[in-house]
Amino acid sequence: MTRKVCVVVTARASYARIRSVLNAIRSHRDLELQLVVAASALLDRYGNADRVMVSEGFEIDRRVYMVIEGENLVTSAKSTGFGMAELATVFDDLKPDLVVTVADRYETMATAIAASYMHIPLVHIQGGEITGSIDEKVRHAITKLADLHMVSNPNAAERVIRMGERPDRVFTTGCPSIDVARQAIEDASLDFDQLFERYGGVGERPDLSEGYIVVLQHPVTTEYAASKRHVEETLHAVSDTDVPTFWFWPNVDAGSDGTSKGIRSFRETHELSKVHFFKNLPPEEFIRVLYHCHCIAGNSSVAIRECAYLGVPAVNIGTRQEGRDRGANVVDVPYERGAILAAIQKRLGAGRIASDLLYGDGHSGEQIAALLSTAPLEVEKRLTY
Amino acid sequence: MTRKVCVVVTARASYARIRSVLNAIRSHRDLELQLVVAASALLDRYGNADRVMVSEGFEIDRRVYMVIEGENLVTSAKSTGFGMAELATVFDDLKPDLVVTVADRYETMATAIAASYMHIPLVHIQGGEITGSIDEKVRHAITKLADLHMVSNPNAAERVIRMGERPDRVFTTGCPSIDVARQAIEDASLDFDQLFERYGGVGERPDLSEGYIVVLQHPVTTEYAASKRHVEETLHAVSDTDVPTFWFWPNVDAGSDGTSKGIRSFRETHELSKVHFFKNLPPEEFIRVLYHCHCIAGNSSVAIRECAYLGVPAVNIGTRQEGRDRGANVVDVPYERGAILAAIQKRLGAGRIASDLLYGDGHSGEQIAALLSTAPLEVEKRLTY
Amino acid sequence: MTRKVCVVVTARASYARIRSVLNAIRSHRDLELQLVVAASALLDRYGNADRVMVSEGFEIDRRVYMVIEGENLVTSAKSTGFGMAELATVFDDLKPDLVVTVADRYETMATAIAASYMHIPLVHIQGGEITGSIDEKVRHAITKLADLHMVSNPNAAERVIRMGERPDRVFTTGCPSIDVARQAIEDASLDFDQLFERYGGVGERPDLSEGYIVVLQHPVTTEYAASKRHVEETLHAVSDTDVPTFWFWPNVDAGSDGTSKGIRSFRETHELSKVHFFKNLPPEEFIRVLYHCHCIAGNSSVAIRECAYLGVPAVNIGTRQEGRDRGANVVDVPYERGAILAAIQKRLGAGRIASDLLYGDGHSGEQIAALLSTAPLEVEKRLTY
Amino acid sequence: MTRKVCVVVTARASYARIRSVLNAIRSHRDLELQLVVAASALLDRYGNADRVMVSEGFEIDRRVYMVIEGENLVTSAKSTGFGMAELATVFDDLKPDLVVTVADRYETMATAIAASYMHIPLVHIQGGEITGSIDEKVRHAITKLADLHMVSNPNAAERVIRMGERPDRVFTTGCPSIDVARQAIEDASLDFDQLFERYGGVGERPDLSEGYIVVLQHPVTTEYAASKRHVEETLHAVSDTDVPTFWFWPNVDAGSDGTSKGIRSFRETHELSKVHFFKNLPPEEFIRVLYHCHCIAGNSSVAIRECAYLGVPAVNIGTRQEGRDRGANVVDVPYERGAILAAIQKRLGAGRIASDLLYGDGHSGEQIAALLSTAPLEVEKRLTY
Repeated sequence: MTRKVCVVVTARASYARIRSVLNAIRSHRDLELQLVVAASALLDRYGNADRVMVSEGFEIDRRVYMVIEGENLVTSAKSTGFGMAELATVFDDLKPDLVVTVADRYETMATAIAASYMHIPLVHIQGGEITGSIDEKVRHAITKLADLHMVSNPNAAERVIRMGERPDRVFTTGCPSIDVARQAIEDASLDFDQLFERYGGVGERPDLSEGYIVVLQHPVTTEYAASKRHVEETLHAVSDTDVPTFWFWPNVDAGSDGTSKGIRSFRETHELSKVHFFKNLPPEEFIRVLYHCHCIAGNSSVAIRECAYLGVPAVNIGTRQEGRDRGANVVDVPYERGAILAAIQKRLGAGRIASDLLYGDGHSGEQIAALLSTAPLEVEKRLTY
Repeated sequence: MTRKVCVVVTARASYARIRSVLNAIRSHRDLELQLVVAASALLDRYGNADRVMVSEGFEIDRRVYMVIEGENLVTSAKSTGFGMAELATVFDDLKPDLVVTVADRYETMATAIAASYMHIPLVHIQGGEITGSIDEKVRHAITKLADLHMVSNPNAAERVIRMGERPDRVFTTGCPSIDVARQAIEDASLDFDQLFERYGGVGERPDLSEGYIVVLQHPVTTEYAASKRHVEETLHAVSDTDVPTFWFWPNVDAGSDGTSKGIRSFRETHELSKVHFFKNLPPEEFIRVLYHCHCIAGNSSVAIRECAYLGVPAVNIGTRQEGRDRGANVVDVPYERGAILAAIQKRLGAGRIASDLLYGDGHSGEQIAALLSTAPLEVEKRLTY
Repeated sequence: MTRKVCVVVTARASYARIRSVLNAIRSHRDLELQLVVAASALLDRYGNADRVMVSEGFEIDRRVYMVIEGENLVTSAKSTGFGMAELATVFDDLKPDLVVTVADRYETMATAIAASYMHIPLVHIQGGEITGSIDEKVRHAITKLADLHMVSNPNAAERVIRMGERPDRVFTTGCPSIDVARQAIEDASLDFDQLFERYGGVGERPDLSEGYIVVLQHPVTTEYAASKRHVEETLHAVSDTDVPTFWFWPNVDAGSDGTSKGIRSFRETHELSKVHFFKNLPPEEFIRVLYHCHCIAGNSSVAIRECAYLGVPAVNIGTRQEGRDRGANVVDVPYERGAILAAIQKRLGAGRIASDLLYGDGHSGEQIAALLSTAPLEVEKRLTY
Repeated sequence: MTRKVCVVVTARASYARIRSVLNAIRSHRDLELQLVVAASALLDRYGNADRVMVSEGFEIDRRVYMVIEGENLVTSAKSTGFGMAELATVFDDLKPDLVVTVADRYETMATAIAASYMHIPLVHIQGGEITGSIDEKVRHAITKLADLHMVSNPNAAERVIRMGERPDRVFTTGCPSIDVARQAIEDASLDFDQLFERYGGVGERPDLSEGYIVVLQHPVTTEYAASKRHVEETLHAVSDTDVPTFWFWPNVDAGSDGTSKGIRSFRETHELSKVHFFKNLPPEEFIRVLYHCHCIAGNSSVAIRECAYLGVPAVNIGTRQEGRDRGANVVDVPYERGAILAAIQKRLGAGRIASDLLYGDGHSGEQIAALLSTAPLEVEKRLTY
């Protein structure tokens, strides 16, 4: 019998991460995909992930606007609450056999609670990982609500089990975000002319003959006030490096104002002629841009996860990724312009390193879909100790 | 410096459980109590806990109506969501230094998420216990959101720590519900005339010269449809016992209709002349009623927790309390009228047994208040493994 | 081209009133019915209108739980707000060409605002009438939001136009509630045996050989505290009349507790042996019960509206219907047991009077559907003066 | 006895408009001000009106984040709904004797419904006016919910009365926005150096020796798609005028994206060297900037209202202000660059015209406060016909 699998996508980045799963569900003869798009995935200033999905052939079953404007800690909680209330109505209407939620963004708790309170088996992708910040609380709380766990690697599996989950409900599938990376570099060629033409961005177009670096720095939510200062260290380092740079704008999150304003005011007072700012690239393009760079700097998980697979060196700045399992491609530095600069300079011209399958082998989507079609549909569970 | 401690009470039973903590906070010179009353604690048909609090001298800082009517799984999720959104506004306004949440009712997740997303240290009372049903998910998810854990006994402490919490953030204080029990039986005398006069109830007034039993049976939320059948087994057993019985009405919960209707339709078709139904008694009266009974039957946690301290025999029916740490006072039976009847009959006239401090020594309130005044106020945490 | 017409039903009584319109839309070849059921229409204790609709062959497109429990003025506002937020999502999903709202219950404002803010032409049925209470504000505010007005009679049409609406947007269709009355008495025979068997109710079964009266009294929302006192006057009068009585339980509304409690406590302290209480009857049965009674007493609009058509005498008590257009069948009395008693006694055995088409001729449903298929779909309007 | 007057401010522009009333309430010995700040008045990208209020000595009693991000018609309805639910809690907590709401922004309906459903007398400022767009529906619907009407002029008073309101509940006080204008030009001197330094803005600093014009153009909400095209006509006209221009950014509203994007993309493709863009000025500075300009162009109500009092010529573009009472200072033109250009050119160097008291004499605040202290506190009303 066909199982209805409802996937709730709340951000553009989550869509990129989950797309191979969506495709695999859609192609699976025993599964029916129900796609709910919510939160910043519907918003213009976060890249209208909904339009991307439609353009990529997905049919959206429900749209739920749920982000309360304010971008602060109060509105994070309010958005989650209102979203939860509406997702309950959506699940009541769609009657899925399984609900899938991804990772640890604050608003994913809305999905997790609505599904678990409604006794719909909840599948969590990407549990058991260690990171800094409030995400840590969200991720592990969702683990305690979820019935089935699709994790990235044996370390994550072990942590989920140690938290008291049944071992036979924890599956090491790798992370589907690696699937995107694998597919993107099947043809790794990159047409920069097209890139600038299609995706615009702000800043001059750099001369790329000597290569370039990539920067992606998010605010660290529990250190709200410091976000501006943090990003300024990176801005100084990048400015001093004097290498062409693609800087990607941070996602919405409590605290994004600090980071965004830091960037904006730096731009007004400093020369950043070699830096080109992008808001969003489609995930494949983004991967290919990464694949060819000297290194990525910042605090994005992509530097640790996808770049492990890609073999791209990463300069990881500050506390945001503290504790996350990392491969040989990562160098950690503090929020300090000298340290950031030195770490970047070391990688210029040094090339890629060996691929590390720490976060998956690029075939997670099919594995997860296969499990969704056969895994036991139970909603009662108990600590294993 | 004085710390503002915000306690959110969402049900009459939670108030009873937490009252000694509220009193201890109020009396503590370094603490200021902020009392938020929400959900069924404001509702007439669940005993208007708010009025009880006011009559007992507490000042209520905020009232939040948040129960979406329907008493089903959808409305549980919706109520929690809307409550979360409003509690965020309340916390933003009251600016507490600490937020306290109790146990595992579904709507307590609203408190837990609002506080943790707003970076207010969250104190969880009664984590680390094992029970059946959806409560299990809620309780452990709150553990993963909470910064400080006040647990009932060393077993619970060990479980919280095994889930990855820092041992120095877990405090074995006993459960404050036992404080109520201790205080209530300081003067254990009970005036039944007054009881009937004040609290009414439905059914004839039984002759108590030969003693009586107490019944309290809640719906088991993940077995919605079965609630009616379950309670009928108990009703048959009680009817066959033919001993005076005080039956206490279940709390609001998804599924309460099944249980409530089971009781109502049984009453219309069977003789239950020795059974007197109460909606609610004040906790002290309830404890004293328990203290003098032959035994308590049903699936209430009070039978396992308070009655361990009181030394009152308990006939625990069905799966609701599965896995919960229990003392020598508990006998477990299935949803089966014969087994229930036999277990009850065995206790008639047999008297109380020795007190067991498994859930506390009756002085938790002061211990918790003392810890609230000194515990570290941190909101970042990470799995210990 | 087919027009999608979304009708939002929020109460059992509203369904009864609108059913002939729903049927006519469903049968109309140029219209497609979208049925949204919300608020108390989904709730067990208000008669589960949703189940009735399904049993009568309607397919429900969306269900929206939105009643915040508390039954007070605060929760009326909160329910309306939460409902509005969800109905917006529903309309965004269903994309109706027209939204239809009925009458003036507080929560209908949720429908009216969501539709008008979303630039969906709003059709208001039953505007322009005069009544007492807060409904007055709701009804006329909805008139100012609505684009098309389907009113009961020329008086109502004139009032809507005087409020500044374009005359060519106001249609005197009669009220569809009269359609139910017309259909019900096509075969007016009534089987009391079946009535008691099917719909139960509380109280002894009266001897109906000498006829009976009907009572239906709602709380008057802006006089919350007085509801109990008001209903007691009626209870005394009915008790003194000593005639078999069918008393119908009031709908949910802010203040229902006062009335309900008044009835309950009166029953406990007084003899009401000839009164049989019903919670709900299907509308046709209810109409037939009315059709054969000596008179109806209370403050229900049915006494003034449907009973005008039926020619059934009405003793209208108190202020709730003040200002409403009324036919010759209505006698007004204050909240005073003597006056109520006298007015009832005068009607005993006196029979029906002539039918009055003040609220419609019983064919409104088809007229409204026909207008929905052709009326201009505009959402901009301006005061006509 | 002191009356508690709760004023809900939901936008920076509303604050400017109501400030003299707030001051007059605060100074009145029989009134106590309760200030609730909500919606875009709390948001950074709409000028943080809350911070302005605090800096001007007001104490904010409650803050309610309620704007659902998306800036489309769906989110307008959702924001209003969620806001309504929370304002109900706020009113329940603050227990005001009167609630004041201003004008006709979509979210003010949240205030109006919460207050009227809770039987708190509702005071509406600025009812009875005629404008285009959805505001028309909102404004008149609020009139039907309000108990006391403080209107701008006899025309507005007459319209409110014709809609069926009691004449003795309608007070012609003038509009308090004119109070700001009166006070601002008591000292009309303007220091442009300070202006640029303090309020920044985007674009070069123009040479003001030959004077300047002011532009303020909002999206017209019911013509969403056309907003971009509309603003482009104005942009072309302004570009062709070749006169220094201060262009003020539009407020949040459904559709603001169209206008904002129109401006942004025009800037990227055309020379606008004499145009300086401001996000927000404090109201006094804004008034003084207006007072000295050749003329104001666009579709803002300020051009018709405040500029009538100031005697500043206004080129009113398009349909947004259709039907609004206007003085001799206004010239109407279509969305057509040639017509706009011609109308502007005619005013260059022509100076101010005579002041018109059509919208008030600049002393409304005190009049309104005096009325609030004495007006009858009733919540029941009925159509006067």
